[in-house]
Amino acid sequence: MSAFGFQLLATDGMARRGRIETAHGTIETPAFMPVGTAATVKAMTPEGVRATGAEILLCNTYHLMLRPGAERVARLGGLHRFMNWPAPILTDSGGYQVMSLASLRKLSEAGVEFQSHLDGSRHLLSPERSIEIQHRLDATITMAFDECTPYPATRDQAATSMRLSMRWARRSRDAFVERPGYAIFGIVQGGVYPDLRAESVAVLAGIGFHGYAVGGLAVGEPAHERNATLEATTPALPADRPRYLMGVGKPADIVAAVARGIDMFDCVLPTRSGRTAQAWTREGPLNLRNARFAEDDTPLDPACACPTCRGFSRAYLHHLIRAEEMLGPMLLTQHNLHYYQDVMAGLRAAIVEGRFAAFHDAFMASPAARTGAASQEGSDG
Amino acid sequence: MSAFGFQLLATDGMARRGRIETAHGTIETPAFMPVGTAATVKAMTPEGVRATGAEILLCNTYHLMLRPGAERVARLGGLHRFMNWPAPILTDSGGYQVMSLASLRKLSEAGVEFQSHLDGSRHLLSPERSIEIQHRLDATITMAFDECTPYPATRDQAATSMRLSMRWARRSRDAFVERPGYAIFGIVQGGVYPDLRAESVAVLAGIGFHGYAVGGLAVGEPAHERNATLEATTPALPADRPRYLMGVGKPADIVAAVARGIDMFDCVLPTRSGRTAQAWTREGPLNLRNARFAEDDTPLDPACACPTCRGFSRAYLHHLIRAEEMLGPMLLTQHNLHYYQDVMAGLRAAIVEGRFAAFHDAFMASPAARTGAASQEGSDG
Repeated sequence: MSAFGFQLLATDGMARRGRIETAHGTIETPAFMPVGTAATVKAMTPEGVRATGAEILLCNTYHLMLRPGAERVARLGGLHRFMNWPAPILTDSGGYQVMSLASLRKLSEAGVEFQSHLDGSRHLLSPERSIEIQHRLDATITMAFDECTPYPATRDQAATSMRLSMRWARRSRDAFVERPGYAIFGIVQGGVYPDLRAESVAVLAGIGFHGYAVGGLAVGEPAHERNATLEATTPALPADRPRYLMGVGKPADIVAAVARGIDMFDCVLPTRSGRTAQAWTREGPLNLRNARFAEDDTPLDPACACPTCRGFSRAYLHHLIRAEEMLGPMLLTQHNLHYYQDVMAGLRAAIVEGRFAAFHDAFMASPAARTGAASQEGSDG
Repeated sequence: MSAFGFQLLATDGMARRGRIETAHGTIETPAFMPVGTAATVKAMTPEGVRATGAEILLCNTYHLMLRPGAERVARLGGLHRFMNWPAPILTDSGGYQVMSLASLRKLSEAGVEFQSHLDGSRHLLSPERSIEIQHRLDATITMAFDECTPYPATRDQAATSMRLSMRWARRSRDAFVERPGYAIFGIVQGGVYPDLRAESVAVLAGIGFHGYAVGGLAVGEPAHERNATLEATTPALPADRPRYLMGVGKPADIVAAVARGIDMFDCVLPTRSGRTAQAWTREGPLNLRNARFAEDDTPLDPACACPTCRGFSRAYLHHLIRAEEMLGPMLLTQHNLHYYQDVMAGLRAAIVEGRFAAFHDAFMASPAARTGAASQEGSDG
């Protein structure tokens, strides 16, 4: 089992081309992680997810601790075996979902007491328990337990929240059981306040993590605030560790964040869109429910090589959606994930070949940069 | 394009091993046809269906005439291209669904006037229109338009209904446009009355069809009545044409019907069961929702080589079903279709090797012959 490691293969401006080595295999960066909330990427087989080019999944601690339960997953051999995904898995800490999904939440220095949204059972999620759950799930990459600061937040609110997250980060790091090829990432908070972000980075770097995530974005802030926050944050992060922007985003958001030094992404958008008739394509987002596709015999994205685009017409996809057939979400999700991975492959090639700025500008000027639906951090439920 | 043909390769008692040649490829018999009601086998890609061993699908004329419409499918290149299934397709005539699903039905010598269950629009389904629709859909095998006699029916009711179906069979045959490699099958009716079945067979054989279906069974009659009706019917059918028992059934029903000379089957059971947590296995039907599977780390059917059984545990399938994840129906449907095709392959091998009686008896004595859910003719909706 190899050690966890990050190689920086090339840079182009702030953009980075890297490679993460883990106990469960290699991840080429910039990388996009499909979301497999409940130990399944909705409407996809793991084999199908892999065929899109994905090398790592994100699974949600909050959902899995409630059903089927971390102890049960551990007894069944861990998440990789349980869901038949032998490649790397990153689990979030549960901190975001517990605040957005659970009821009767009580936040204290200890952690968050809450009631399950499934059956009302009472639970405590603390840094120690979150890390233990992620260990039992056998996460390749564990995330520190944090509070995702809401947007908007005053400077005082953001500071108080960030400092709690930093104390929790210390406890998370202490609770993490080191194993070769496994990692724990810290999460930078601080809202849209550059000095708070700098304070958070300094605390986390002082503790020392295998990678660093930028949290508290993709929560409703305008793109220019997100970009300014990234510009104030990523240069201070250790250059020899991977950087992960949580919950982002639309294709254009990802391209913009790679330009600002981010290596890893996750978002529910390609999968959730696939279940609501929206396709992400080189021609921008398309809503396949629209009657204009009823007799459109062309592929979803004529330049795409995915099985959906090779085998089926827009007219057929339109029919499946109108008839509420499961194959509609299956084929659209497959395409969307494939398209996202194509964007990532394009980014990686552009950085290596020293033409990232041209790639970025061409992408931003193309229909592919159009936005059609909300981007958000979270679980795919 | 080869002519439509049927070769009888071997017989063993009444059981027959055959091969059907069509414009769209070959079908080894006894054959099971998965149901793709609305131009999709629910929860499966066509590639996935093919990988189970299926060589022919059944699609439903009633559903497709209403959505997306036969003329639209024709403009989009026919059903094979539309749904990306280049292999043979059999379409039913719509006669069964129009009586079971449509509203405000008015049956006359001309046909059936009805209102769509989707949008209330008014339609006429007649022998001529049914055959025209199936032609536009590009069905490899077209079914004559008939009335499926309900069960129970008095002798008079069954006779009146059967004779109407025979007049419609004549009109269906006249409306059928002959093309190399395409076929039209007549449908024997007559309820559970041997003399009416004999009359129906004589009329249909006099008209002359490429194959013969036994209709009006799998509609609630006890197994011994179905078997007696088959025994009174199949010996009279032309031996050099394929014989199709519509809407059957559970694995044991299929084995029993092959013993009585049937070559082709269709049923919604493997697909519908797959969406209601029921698996068909060598150990009999299993309901994966059951809590006893929550920590069962064994495959669904340890003797099965399908991707579901090779990749996933009962515990994982149980989790997917409890969490209402789409992958649950996807994996269970995949297994069920694979299992049904395994049963058919076992039947074919047993006939060729002259050990059908032993296969039959062993199957009927095994847990695989257990029945867990209703079998029925129909569409998979």
